Amino acid sequence: MSASGQGTGTLPRGTSIFSTRVKESGRAILAPVVRLAVAMRLTPNTITVIGLVITIVASTLIAFGWLLLGAALLTAGSLLDAVDGALARAQGSGTPFGSFLDSTLDRSGEAIIYIGIGGWLMSSQADPAWPMLALMIALAGSFLVSYSHARAQGIGLAADVGLAPRTERLVLVIAGVALAGFGFATGLLGILVILATLTVATVIQRIWHVWHASQASTSSKEN
Amino acid sequence: MSASGQGTGTLPRGTSIFSTRVKESGRAILAPVVRLAVAMRLTPNTITVIGLVITIVASTLIAFGWLLLGAALLTAGSLLDAVDGALARAQGSGTPFGSFLDSTLDRSGEAIIYIGIGGWLMSSQADPAWPMLALMIALAGSFLVSYSHARAQGIGLAADVGLAPRTERLVLVIAGVALAGFGFATGLLGILVILATLTVATVIQRIWHVWHASQASTSSKEN
Repeated sequence: MSASGQGTGTLPRGTSIFSTRVKESGRAILAPVVRLAVAMRLTPNTITVIGLVITIVASTLIAFGWLLLGAALLTAGSLLDAVDGALARAQGSGTPFGSFLDSTLDRSGEAIIYIGIGGWLMSSQADPAWPMLALMIALAGSFLVSYSHARAQGIGLAADVGLAPRTERLVLVIAGVALAGFGFATGLLGILVILATLTVATVIQRIWHVWHASQASTSSKEN
Repeated sequence: MSASGQGTGTLPRGTSIFSTRVKESGRAILAPVVRLAVAMRLTPNTITVIGLVITIVASTLIAFGWLLLGAALLTAGSLLDAVDGALARAQGSGTPFGSFLDSTLDRSGEAIIYIGIGGWLMSSQADPAWPMLALMIALAGSFLVSYSHARAQGIGLAADVGLAPRTERLVLVIAGVALAGFGFATGLLGILVILATLTVATVIQRIWHVWHASQASTSSKEN
């Protein structure tokens, strides 16, 4: 699972709360891991699946209250996450199936993290109703951000706008789990509310953006 | 919001637990509603948005325990749901933006229904942990079924397989809410478990299907 999808990793993804420089530094750190993966003859798809397995283990740990261990494992998994795309580029072997698998398992992994956090909230919070509401909106919102992107792509339009692309959401959610692990559960709840708000705003922004783009493409065809 | 998406409504959607005949009868029932919408000069996109508003109201009712009223309203909303696609076909005015809006708001509506049910589970069940787990998996699984479809479409492959397309999921979930409304909460919990299982199985099936389709298209290019 790459941070930005094998297929679209080289495309600009619009405004984001992270600078391109931060992402480039990340790639430099990954270079030795990519060389190791090449030496071990691992394919990008194998790494994508290993990334999902790590996410499942980490989310199970989180659900059972091992928050710091879970957050550390998710961080390791996310670094690995960026390796498959980098490896596909290094090997020049990015395939349409690789891109499909990568982004489908990215979404699965994100859902599994939220479900793990949900498990922890249900067992640890005295009144989990509102935190669970924020969590479910953040889960649905995250999916809708990716779904609206994929559907726009399907009709030949770009929807690369929005403040909450996947890497940013992942960093926020891992930070939230770590905060809760250090005993500051309110930090995690706050981050869930932020994620719920940002993702819903991004979906509305993307619908608006695709509406304008489709109007522009219709009028340019008419002229 | 149409039952099968404005853009893809005329395409075969593969194996399903409903027969085509059931869907055709549904369309016949809708014909007068479509004529009314045409007379009122409603656009398919307006109907899509009205459908989402009805879903929000119904889900709020469900969250606060008005299960039968919520289920009835969801049924009405789902019938309206099929009108936008039929209207677009009748007017010959299906647009790429209409198709994008329709499927994005379909997903939003589905998420909102699950969130409404989650609200009810949290406030009504003595131990909501396992029901909420099934609910979150069903929510994520439903999204992944649609997402894998959209992503496969994005790389030019079809992923029209699976036992849990949207209309079927919607009928199951409305039936579950109605059962709980009649005092049989276990029925709803059972349906959530069935939905979680069916949607996860469908996602795995679709990944498998796209893998085979991409292998076939690669080898046909090589020959």
